[in-house]
Amino acid sequence: MASPPSKSSFPVTPENISQKVLKCEYAVRGEIVILAQKLQEELTAKPGTHPFDEILYCNIGNPQSLGQQPITFFREVLAFCDHPAIVDRSETQGLFSKDSIERAQKILGQIPGRATGAYSHSQGIKGLRDTIAAGIEARDGFPADPNDIFLTDGASPAVHMMMQLLIRSENDGIFCPIPQYPLYSASIALHGGTLVPYYLDEATGWGLEISELKKQLEAAKSKGISVRALVVINPGNPTGQVLSEENQRKIVEFCKEEGLVLLADEVYQENVYVPEKKFHSFKKVARSMGYGEKDISLLSFQSVSKGYYGECGKRGGYMEVTGFAGDVREQIYKVASVNLCSNISGQILASLVMNPPKVGDDSYDSYCAERDGILSSLARRAKTLEEAFNKLDGVTCNKAEGAMYLFPRIELPQKAIKAAEAAKKAPDAFYCQCLLNATGIVFVPGSGFGQVSGTWHFRCTILPQEDKIPAIVNRLTEFHQKFMEEFHD
Amino acid sequence: MASPPSKSSFPVTPENISQKVLKCEYAVRGEIVILAQKLQEELTAKPGTHPFDEILYCNIGNPQSLGQQPITFFREVLAFCDHPAIVDRSETQGLFSKDSIERAQKILGQIPGRATGAYSHSQGIKGLRDTIAAGIEARDGFPADPNDIFLTDGASPAVHMMMQLLIRSENDGIFCPIPQYPLYSASIALHGGTLVPYYLDEATGWGLEISELKKQLEAAKSKGISVRALVVINPGNPTGQVLSEENQRKIVEFCKEEGLVLLADEVYQENVYVPEKKFHSFKKVARSMGYGEKDISLLSFQSVSKGYYGECGKRGGYMEVTGFAGDVREQIYKVASVNLCSNISGQILASLVMNPPKVGDDSYDSYCAERDGILSSLARRAKTLEEAFNKLDGVTCNKAEGAMYLFPRIELPQKAIKAAEAAKKAPDAFYCQCLLNATGIVFVPGSGFGQVSGTWHFRCTILPQEDKIPAIVNRLTEFHQKFMEEFHD
Repeated sequence: MASPPSKSSFPVTPENISQKVLKCEYAVRGEIVILAQKLQEELTAKPGTHPFDEILYCNIGNPQSLGQQPITFFREVLAFCDHPAIVDRSETQGLFSKDSIERAQKILGQIPGRATGAYSHSQGIKGLRDTIAAGIEARDGFPADPNDIFLTDGASPAVHMMMQLLIRSENDGIFCPIPQYPLYSASIALHGGTLVPYYLDEATGWGLEISELKKQLEAAKSKGISVRALVVINPGNPTGQVLSEENQRKIVEFCKEEGLVLLADEVYQENVYVPEKKFHSFKKVARSMGYGEKDISLLSFQSVSKGYYGECGKRGGYMEVTGFAGDVREQIYKVASVNLCSNISGQILASLVMNPPKVGDDSYDSYCAERDGILSSLARRAKTLEEAFNKLDGVTCNKAEGAMYLFPRIELPQKAIKAAEAAKKAPDAFYCQCLLNATGIVFVPGSGFGQVSGTWHFRCTILPQEDKIPAIVNRLTEFHQKFMEEFHD
Repeated sequence: MASPPSKSSFPVTPENISQKVLKCEYAVRGEIVILAQKLQEELTAKPGTHPFDEILYCNIGNPQSLGQQPITFFREVLAFCDHPAIVDRSETQGLFSKDSIERAQKILGQIPGRATGAYSHSQGIKGLRDTIAAGIEARDGFPADPNDIFLTDGASPAVHMMMQLLIRSENDGIFCPIPQYPLYSASIALHGGTLVPYYLDEATGWGLEISELKKQLEAAKSKGISVRALVVINPGNPTGQVLSEENQRKIVEFCKEEGLVLLADEVYQENVYVPEKKFHSFKKVARSMGYGEKDISLLSFQSVSKGYYGECGKRGGYMEVTGFAGDVREQIYKVASVNLCSNISGQILASLVMNPPKVGDDSYDSYCAERDGILSSLARRAKTLEEAFNKLDGVTCNKAEGAMYLFPRIELPQKAIKAAEAAKKAPDAFYCQCLLNATGIVFVPGSGFGQVSGTWHFRCTILPQEDKIPAIVNRLTEFHQKFMEEFHD
């Protein structure tokens, strides 16, 4: 054999890869998290090298990584579906609740050949889509069609699929709230489109004003941008607000008038913590206005990762697709089919969260206790953290009405801003980095989500277990005081 | 509320969606499968309306949909990981084998907080990547680094990720075998690149000639195409050939010389049916030639969907990424992180297939019996179908050395070609449609995979259970005879 020639430089470099990939940013798993992982490794390798003994991850909506326990009924059904060979064994009766066995048997009966290890229909198993459609109907009081459901590996691939479909070039714009969940900016960048921002109004509790939408739409048009769709996240991420029904009606009306596809991110539909607010799906709102299939193109994204279940690792979710012509739906189906199907456990779980145990079921009482325990605890944590933020010098924080986040605003002293500049960081990234190095607490800087120019924020999840919250509050308060003293103008 | 205005046409039409999406085709789930689903529904609704009583799906590598049973050990581990709350229950000991409990406990110990419901590291759980890297080392006899492993929801998203990274515009080309698995053409189309074909030589058992690669590379260059990468599928899909090590060495040399990324689709690595052939990973081949990290950029794709396990519905897989500079690997990591992580059950399963039970383990004997039963049966089915195809008038079929497919060539009479033209179908699509309507057997026309111009083929999986094979052979033989008589020139 000829000896290897001398060529040794890598053929692929940052200069010759896709510029779309280069441009894409994803703060939730960005620089600050990489630093956190480094500190974590150092703590493990050499305990005592940092002024804290654990990393407190408040950067990502990942409840079970912080000790939230899964809902027992859901896991029983999943385990049984994974290993249905145990159906006739007497031990099974002792290990699983009666209704979980019944439910698993029903689900297995809906899967052709009971084959949980087979690719399914590219939209997902029909029987599971029937269950999900029935759950949507029960939630909304309006019909839902199982053929409108596309089961996906979490909500993210569904969002990518729609961006892939809608974006033709950088002249196609997608309306996104600012602040936004960076999946949207990342996906728009990856598919080569333009993010058209609309700003949520922090002063009115992150309100969504139609006048702002109109202003930004005109501005985009004047730049030659054709706006194709509007993303709404309700309850809001990172802002935690829950839209009023009146506000939702105006958004529906606006999208209809302007011919925009309404992309409704409704993954936090179970996460509402204040009695004065209630979740309404955009489809329910549109239908209650008398708008049907032909009046508005509307997508709803749902995920098994959020809610009280928080099953992030299962990668389950769906999108409900309404108001598209048949020939476009065929294109959506085709894109879905290129990845064959979403994972079957995630599909099963999506059907379970849309149809949990009912009154009279064997698991009902324990299911309710688990669900309500998690939701009421999340509400308490949101309240405690919100109050703590509002006590910090220069920090203001809107109420977390829903979702899993607080997005406090911080007024940083000029000296801190200059120090950040010197460190080549955005001021809020600088603050978050100092906080992490001093306390082990991980927040994501507001610049990762977008914010009104000249304002600074960070996102903090409400997910650490309740026994950790006092320590977070104490460490944060102490750090903040020192930081403000150090950088006092 | 204002009454809805009259505007009722859908804002999204095939004319204003992404042309990349429009162009993309995916034959494996295309027209023929939609027809099969329609016939299936008709059979269910009105039995007796067709000259067959079941659809025989030979269109897709989906073993468990056709009755293949999952490997018990794998499912035991998955079920236990889904519902670890049963760890201390006495019933658990009766239901699960000893080593499956030990393995599940080990895996749970590798997951931070034992949280199978949490998002993991975006490359996958570190402990599972350690196991996979050890499995690769044991297979190849060369080191593997867990930091090179990216766990993915099956192999398809890994392929998309690399196409997304490498393709900048339609001037970027990706070398693909013809015939090819249509995931590649679909993914290249979705990312706006150009498929640069190289033809496998049917006459030499689907051989891969370097002279053909050189010729096609020159042709592409002369059109202004910059070829970035070369896809090799080994064992081959749809062709079923297993490359010789000598041939692999030449391919490695060619990629190295030309600065091409070698994308090695090795998902059928366990599916080799002839004693004279053996699977060698491209990494092993490259390392045995003395080529290291800096000499060649090499990816290996693996999946839990194939092999003897056939766990398609679990959507597990990985890519091993070697020979990339750190700054490019960061970009790959970023793209992976936008979807957070792949599903944890799929991750666990990927670690299991790369580290199955060993001699002395409680499950070892039953595991071997299950594995060998499936593989020897697949070999018998491949042989029976190959012989049946070669007996048909005008049909020739290479040996299925590996993978799950046969790709016979069919000489169609002019009269059939004209009838296909009249029906606006490719001749092989016409043949497959007539076959489906007459017998319920689903083959995918060769035009979905690409073929030398003027030749016609179809792909048939070897996956129907053995008791179905005689019926398939009989129905096919009878149909073929009638078809050839009807369209005799």
